[in-house]
Amino acid sequence: MTQLEARRERVYDRMAQEGVALVMFEDAEGRRDPAVRWLTGHPGDALLFLSVDKQSVLVPWDINMAKVYADADFVISYAEFCRQSVQAILGAAEFLKIPYGSRVEIPMDTSYRMFLQYVELVTDYDILCRSGGVHETVRELRTIKDEEEIGIYRQASKITNEIIDLLEDKIRSEELRTETDVALFIEAEARGKGCEGTGFETLAAGPGRSFGIHAFPAYTGAAFTGPGLAILDFGLKFQGYTTDVTLTFAQGPLTKHQEKLLSLTERAYKLAFSLVADGTGTREVAAAVDALFGKSGKAMPHALGHGIGLEAHEAPFLRNQPGNIRQFQTGMIFTLEPGLYDPIHGGCRLENDILLSGDGAEALTQARIIRL
Amino acid sequence: MTQLEARRERVYDRMAQEGVALVMFEDAEGRRDPAVRWLTGHPGDALLFLSVDKQSVLVPWDINMAKVYADADFVISYAEFCRQSVQAILGAAEFLKIPYGSRVEIPMDTSYRMFLQYVELVTDYDILCRSGGVHETVRELRTIKDEEEIGIYRQASKITNEIIDLLEDKIRSEELRTETDVALFIEAEARGKGCEGTGFETLAAGPGRSFGIHAFPAYTGAAFTGPGLAILDFGLKFQGYTTDVTLTFAQGPLTKHQEKLLSLTERAYKLAFSLVADGTGTREVAAAVDALFGKSGKAMPHALGHGIGLEAHEAPFLRNQPGNIRQFQTGMIFTLEPGLYDPIHGGCRLENDILLSGDGAEALTQARIIRL
Repeated sequence: MTQLEARRERVYDRMAQEGVALVMFEDAEGRRDPAVRWLTGHPGDALLFLSVDKQSVLVPWDINMAKVYADADFVISYAEFCRQSVQAILGAAEFLKIPYGSRVEIPMDTSYRMFLQYVELVTDYDILCRSGGVHETVRELRTIKDEEEIGIYRQASKITNEIIDLLEDKIRSEELRTETDVALFIEAEARGKGCEGTGFETLAAGPGRSFGIHAFPAYTGAAFTGPGLAILDFGLKFQGYTTDVTLTFAQGPLTKHQEKLLSLTERAYKLAFSLVADGTGTREVAAAVDALFGKSGKAMPHALGHGIGLEAHEAPFLRNQPGNIRQFQTGMIFTLEPGLYDPIHGGCRLENDILLSGDGAEALTQARIIRL
Repeated sequence: MTQLEARRERVYDRMAQEGVALVMFEDAEGRRDPAVRWLTGHPGDALLFLSVDKQSVLVPWDINMAKVYADADFVISYAEFCRQSVQAILGAAEFLKIPYGSRVEIPMDTSYRMFLQYVELVTDYDILCRSGGVHETVRELRTIKDEEEIGIYRQASKITNEIIDLLEDKIRSEELRTETDVALFIEAEARGKGCEGTGFETLAAGPGRSFGIHAFPAYTGAAFTGPGLAILDFGLKFQGYTTDVTLTFAQGPLTKHQEKLLSLTERAYKLAFSLVADGTGTREVAAAVDALFGKSGKAMPHALGHGIGLEAHEAPFLRNQPGNIRQFQTGMIFTLEPGLYDPIHGGCRLENDILLSGDGAEALTQARIIRL
C-alpha cells in the first residue's frame, strides 16, 4: 500500500464510523484545501470524491496535470461536469453507485449560498456541512506527519539551511544590499535547488521598518542592512511542503535596548525549545515565553508558533489563549518564533522548524540572529 | 469629496434603497474582498462596516498599517473585539447606534457554519447573506473604473511596457536564459519601479512546456528560450491594481504549424480588439474569436479575457457561454488574450489590457509576439 493509499484508508475508516457514504473535498481558488494533494498527490485545482466502499474519484480542472501527478482510482475531467460542482457531486454519486438517501458530506467551509444550492439540487442525498466531520478529521490527521512527510521536511530543511548560510555570506559581503536583493536571491536559489518556489511572500524588512509584524509591501528596493535590526522571514515550498524561518540581522553599534531585544528573544527561543515534549500543552509553552518577556515589561504581539505542512500555517497553533487545549504530539512539525518589536528600536524575531519525534524535539532548520 | 468618499456614497445610496442599516465587508486570509481597499484605501486584513446614515468603521488587524493607509470615519483595532467577527458586528452596531431589528448584511460568501453562528449570536438584528445585495453592487461598481483608477492603470501600464521592452532586449541578448531568470527579472524591476510586486505568480513556460495552460511549477530553472514557442504571462501590482499581459517568444526555425498558431492568434487578437465597443455583448466578441479559430479546426481552451483591477481576475468575464449576457461598457478595463496550444508544436498566447473609454478601445499595454 502506498503512503497515499494509507492516508485514504484512514479517511475511509472514519467515513464508515460516521456513516458517511460519500465525501467531497475541494481545492480551488478561494477555497483551498490541501487535503486533495495530501490524499492524491495532485497539486492543482480539483474536486476529490471518496466513497465509503473505498473508491476515489479525482475531478481535476487540468486533466493533463492529473495524468502526471495524481494517484486516484478514477480521474474524470471537471469539464465532463460542465465545471459545476453540483453536477460533479451528482455525477460522482451516480458513478460510484451511492445509494439514494445516503449521507454525503461537503466541505465544512462551503458558503451559505452554495449550501442552499446543494440542498436544493442534490435532493436524493442527505447533505452534511459541519464541524467535527470528515474534513476536520483529515485536518487533524495532517498535524501528525508520516515518514514520507518527515523525509520531505528533511530535504526541504537541508535546502533552507544551505540558503541561510548563503544569505549570511552574501549579506556580510554586501553582495545583497536591498530587501529586494535578498528576497529574490531566495526565490532564485529555491527554484534552482528544486523547490516549487517560496511557501509565502518573503518578508524582508530593513532597520527602518522591522518594528512592524506585517511589513507592506513585503519587500521593497530599500536597504536591508544598516545600523539596527532587520528581519527576514521566508519559507521554501518543496514537494508541496513549506518551511518557515525568520532570521534577524543586527548591525552595530546597537543600543542597549536593541541588545536587550536580541538576548530576550534568544532566551525565549531556548526556553520554548526546552519545554516542548509529547503531551505538554502548547498553551503552557506559549505562556512560559509570555511570562519571560513579561518579567522585562515586554509583550509579544503574536503567537509563539504554528504547525507547518502543505499549508504555511496549520494546526497546531501555539497560542497562550484560554481555549487552547492542544498538546504537543510526536510527529508534529511546527515553528517556534518568539519576537519583540519596538517602534523606535526595531524588531527582532527568531523562528525555526521543529520536529517532535520519539527522541524529543529537533530543530530541522538553523535560522539565527546574525550580528553583522 | 475624495474619490474614496464618493465610492462610499454610492454604497450608502444602495443601502438606503435596499433598507440595509449596516453592511460588513471582510478582507482576510481565505476570504479576500478588495471592496475594503476600494472603499478605504486600507491594503491589509480588515473588516469594514458602513451604516446607512453614512458612517464608516474600519476594523483592521494591524492598527499601525491603518494609520498610514486607511480613510474611514472611525478606526477600531480588531483586538478590541477579541479578533472575533461576531463581536465586531455587535460592537460596530452598538457604536453606530444601529436600531434593533434592522437589516444587517454580511458577506455573500460567508460560510454556512459562520452564518449559523451569526444568526445564533446576533439576535437583535435581521442578518442578510445573499446574492444581488450590497456586496454584489460593489462588485458591479468596481467593473467601471473611475478617473483615479484609470490614472493608476496608465502608470501601471507604462511600467509594464518598460519592462516588456527590457525583456525583449535582455532575452534577445541572452542575458536572461532560464524561466527563473525571466520571472525574477520582472519581480526585481517591478519593485524597483515602485510596484507592490507582481499581481500573480509569473508564468514562464519555455518551448518544452508552453503547450499547457497551467504550467506547474509556474517557472523553473529550465531554459526559457530555444527553438519553438515560449509563453510569458505576468502582471504588475501598482497601488493595488494588477496589469496582466502575455507575450509569446518564437525562435526559429518554426514549423508551418507553429507559424499558423502565431498568425491565427494575432488575427484573433486584432479581430477581438476591432469588435470591442460600448454596448456590444462580451459573448459576441468571444464567439467571433472562437469562430475564427474554428474555421482552421482549432479551439481555444480558455476564455477570451476578463476584467482586471484590485483583483487579477474580476468581472467582466469574456466568455462564449450561453448565460453570458454582459456587455462592454465605457470605463471597463479588461484583458484580451486569445491563445492556441498544441501538445507537439507548443503554445501561443497574446494578451493586452484594454481600456474602453468614450473614444473607443485603447490598448494600455504593448505585449506582442516576439520573433527571436
